[in-house]
Amino acid sequence: MRMTQFFLPLVKDVTQDAQIASHKLMLKAGMMCQESAGLYAWLPLGLRVLKKVEEIIRQEQDRIGGQEILLPVIQSADLWKQSDRYESYGKEMLRIRDRHDREYLFSPTNEEAVTNIFKRFVKSYRQLPSILYHIQWKFRDEIRPRFGVMRCREFLMKDAYSFDVDAQTARETYFKMMASYLRTFSRMGLTVVPVRADTGPIGGDLSHEFHILAQTGESRLYYDKAFDELHYDDEIDVEKILSLYAMEEGMHDPKICPVSKENLREARGIEVGHIFNFGTKYTKGLEAGVTGKNGEIIYPECGSYGIGLGRLVAGVIEAFRDEHGIIWPESIAPFKVGLINVKESDDTTRLCADDTYKKLQAHGVEVLYDDTQESPGVKFNRMDLIGLPWQVIVGPRDWQEGKVEIKNRKTGAREKMSPAELYQKFL
Amino acid sequence: MRMTQFFLPLVKDVTQDAQIASHKLMLKAGMMCQESAGLYAWLPLGLRVLKKVEEIIRQEQDRIGGQEILLPVIQSADLWKQSDRYESYGKEMLRIRDRHDREYLFSPTNEEAVTNIFKRFVKSYRQLPSILYHIQWKFRDEIRPRFGVMRCREFLMKDAYSFDVDAQTARETYFKMMASYLRTFSRMGLTVVPVRADTGPIGGDLSHEFHILAQTGESRLYYDKAFDELHYDDEIDVEKILSLYAMEEGMHDPKICPVSKENLREARGIEVGHIFNFGTKYTKGLEAGVTGKNGEIIYPECGSYGIGLGRLVAGVIEAFRDEHGIIWPESIAPFKVGLINVKESDDTTRLCADDTYKKLQAHGVEVLYDDTQESPGVKFNRMDLIGLPWQVIVGPRDWQEGKVEIKNRKTGAREKMSPAELYQKFL
Repeated sequence: MRMTQFFLPLVKDVTQDAQIASHKLMLKAGMMCQESAGLYAWLPLGLRVLKKVEEIIRQEQDRIGGQEILLPVIQSADLWKQSDRYESYGKEMLRIRDRHDREYLFSPTNEEAVTNIFKRFVKSYRQLPSILYHIQWKFRDEIRPRFGVMRCREFLMKDAYSFDVDAQTARETYFKMMASYLRTFSRMGLTVVPVRADTGPIGGDLSHEFHILAQTGESRLYYDKAFDELHYDDEIDVEKILSLYAMEEGMHDPKICPVSKENLREARGIEVGHIFNFGTKYTKGLEAGVTGKNGEIIYPECGSYGIGLGRLVAGVIEAFRDEHGIIWPESIAPFKVGLINVKESDDTTRLCADDTYKKLQAHGVEVLYDDTQESPGVKFNRMDLIGLPWQVIVGPRDWQEGKVEIKNRKTGAREKMSPAELYQKFL
Repeated sequence: MRMTQFFLPLVKDVTQDAQIASHKLMLKAGMMCQESAGLYAWLPLGLRVLKKVEEIIRQEQDRIGGQEILLPVIQSADLWKQSDRYESYGKEMLRIRDRHDREYLFSPTNEEAVTNIFKRFVKSYRQLPSILYHIQWKFRDEIRPRFGVMRCREFLMKDAYSFDVDAQTARETYFKMMASYLRTFSRMGLTVVPVRADTGPIGGDLSHEFHILAQTGESRLYYDKAFDELHYDDEIDVEKILSLYAMEEGMHDPKICPVSKENLREARGIEVGHIFNFGTKYTKGLEAGVTGKNGEIIYPECGSYGIGLGRLVAGVIEAFRDEHGIIWPESIAPFKVGLINVKESDDTTRLCADDTYKKLQAHGVEVLYDDTQESPGVKFNRMDLIGLPWQVIVGPRDWQEGKVEIKNRKTGAREKMSPAELYQKFL
């Protein structure tokens, strides 16, 4: 993509409302803009990140057998009355009446709706286990939306729902999903801590939140420092993770905490995922039984599992940044390479930069090419701000020596190499 | 994907409400299900098609320089009051009040919201032309939703908005978008007719609808039979297309129609796209001027361009089907190949089918593998119903001769070949 053709509206002076780094940086870097209180539009740079995050989540849900569906965001109130959540959900639920004065709502979560789909189509224990998920917009009418997309009202969420034949297999599915979440976050370069959490209005007695450790986090966490040694690779040892103490503030009781003071970490975290095992609450409530082995009715044991995509993007920025701007992990960077032509006015340099651009693209590398007339200083600062992992700098002096310069955004390390070496590097 | 693990809830007896073929087939094939009046959930088979349609549309929008953004679906009513459409839009607009009793709506279209983003970030004529688009859910509160996703209330739409420096370049952008639309539909195997259409509440004086020809279409069209000879390949001759008579019923006047009776076709069509050139209506209304060459204020000349994705999926089914079910064009088929094991009880046959499945996948072919215990008849009928372009049939007799059978869903042609030839065919 050529910068001259890319809709990248950088903002110098951002609103006073933007208190945390990710909110400021997302506005400054032209990733998103506010449309109304708690409502944001994603602009091209931000949307590219959001889509990469979405694709990683999708792959990891598919990997554990998740089946992707897509529910409408507007739902009839009837189902929520059946589950007794319509009144209890309170003012965070956006309630709507249509032209015929029928009651609807903008779904804040989908336990009811997905259980209802399950009920219509799954009739036998032989069709279990079943994991259905979708990636769709939700609305929660926060009384005080803040921190940009971190705590907004309309947000993109992946929510999955599992149905199992009994409590034991439901726990196994829950642990499988926990491993899937840890892999998902790990692929974005994040180390998250899964902490025991309150189940709130979803119900059930087993629940974990996944937190990115960050000073700006809204939650306070207490966990065994052994967590800092864990690596979440392909073979995740869920047993080991569960054996370690890790609590969200509301669940932590210093009086019964088994971890010694010197081994206990206290930290702030940004919640980017939340999983629940809540048994038969909705399958019984909505009469979604299936036939068991001996013809009896079984009410499947369920869990639900959410990841907030926009919040995750903001959380990654909180975790990976410096005084110059964002530092994207490669897996979700909007482009892998930022190509800078330092002397646009010079015909030869421009031809060389154009050539490098075309060849990087031909090698399948996603490149944002700063072909504007602006000064090298402006270009360098802009590239640092938007945080692409690699900067490739084409200038007349280097080119005469048959070289381009490459800079690693994260380490700041610079290296000169021939174009051939450059393409090789990104293969 | 193995059928035993795929959430594919086929439905034998569909609701009486399903009057047209696409509605019936989408329910029968487990592509979607109804959630409430005019509200549908997409199930895995349908969602795979929807996503392929989305990706083709995205590629063709990007190809003409479109920049993808993503607006929230909930919008403040304020902007619509500024453009004077809040009251005039009528009851099709879903109006909402939040917990603070502020007025919002579920966006039915986005001329106002996108013009407002343009206004905030584009300040100079040098930044034009600009095409911004998004693919997002819309809501139109149809008084009588019908025909499944063809005329539902919540629907996925690609809507693009163009901003040009003057009327002449705006027309050029309009024609470029017209070519992009014809390429988009052509990639899905469709021949559509672009007809002159009324501009309705969007405004302006130049507008075209794109219709799939189908008996079940809700619109009546009149067009020069020369259209039947046109091919929409990479180099689309927009001039030629525009020179031919083609009118939506409301625009057709037999008294002034220049085409002789024998050269005039009358047909029914399903509208899958609609484009508008409406000048400065919204840029003036929302004061979205930019600075011109000499420092003067210019109000950009605009167009808007929509494609309904769900309706397009249904329209494709109306166009490509037979008495046995759907016949997907390869470009948007949910899977390219349906693999059938005709003797699941036989160990050798199962091993051979498993092997074929793995090797097809290893060759990058999307396969749905019917590994169920059901009878060959059930399997054949099911594959015909869901309409994958190719069926690969593994049976004990053929396998002994080192062959599998391959069937073309569209032509019904069958051929026997070795597995090696099979993989070669799909490379």
